Amino acid sequence: MQQSRDFRRRPLMMSALAVVLVALAGVVLHAQAQEKPPSKAEQAIKYRQSVYKVILWNFGPVAGMAQGKIPYDAADFARRAERVATMAPMLLEGYPAGSATGTTTRAHPEIWEHMDEFTELMKAMEGKAATFATIAKDGDFEKSRAAFVELADACKACHEKYRTD
Amino acid sequence: MQQSRDFRRRPLMMSALAVVLVALAGVVLHAQAQEKPPSKAEQAIKYRQSVYKVILWNFGPVAGMAQGKIPYDAADFARRAERVATMAPMLLEGYPAGSATGTTTRAHPEIWEHMDEFTELMKAMEGKAATFATIAKDGDFEKSRAAFVELADACKACHEKYRTD
Repeated sequence: MQQSRDFRRRPLMMSALAVVLVALAGVVLHAQAQEKPPSKAEQAIKYRQSVYKVILWNFGPVAGMAQGKIPYDAADFARRAERVATMAPMLLEGYPAGSATGTTTRAHPEIWEHMDEFTELMKAMEGKAATFATIAKDGDFEKSRAAFVELADACKACHEKYRTD
Repeated sequence: MQQSRDFRRRPLMMSALAVVLVALAGVVLHAQAQEKPPSKAEQAIKYRQSVYKVILWNFGPVAGMAQGKIPYDAADFARRAERVATMAPMLLEGYPAGSATGTTTRAHPEIWEHMDEFTELMKAMEGKAATFATIAKDGDFEKSRAAFVELADACKACHEKYRTD
């Protein structure tokens, strides 16, 4: 009787224990991940992803206005265009040698094999962003939209070649 | 005999099942987290964290130079000081109403109850950052270091009150 009750209990205890162990393993791994200082590669990856995120925060509403999805606000459009142009030249230093891996990244490893071409694409995009910001300041919607499309194309040219899915 | 073998097997099967279930639950939750478009609050939190990260990317070497831990490079110091001053005014819009929670954040919920004071602290820091960038341009190490300390104090004033551990 005693033995059969033990047998009935054990499965539940074991699965509960498994859950606790899995949870504990998770806590330990999480603590390790938090305590270890980030590597130089990891810092660079997080940095460039942050620059992209700040660009996107501004590019999103600008794209919405350019595409007629949200009302055109010339002052807000110009302010955000300016920010995109300010952020664009901060990207390239986020791709130092050795930062192809380190944490999750969509950067194609070939970037570092073709750094000259990658740099050219970045510089072309920076130029389009600067022109876009200058034109946006004048507050002419059609001209601003045309400059936006040119900048978007410059972004896309690099994404298609050097960004993975 | 058949029954006792079943009893012996069950604990192992149950714990293995528990592990599989926990793993599956993790995969499902992860997939949900990835597929669900980020909320406005989550976008704002990620945005402001990105701005802080870009600031830190530049502030780190500047602090190292100011503290004599790495050699003072006047041009690099000035360039990074300029970037900190450019990024600083981008922070405030990362704290819209309703973005106290949404994803992991160290922002104290009291920010939104004392937005006037929080804004004042931010504006004070922006001013110190602008002064710091202007002074850094002249390339005088002692003056640059003094301006750096004033900026660092302005950062700290807000962190102590409105950043959680």
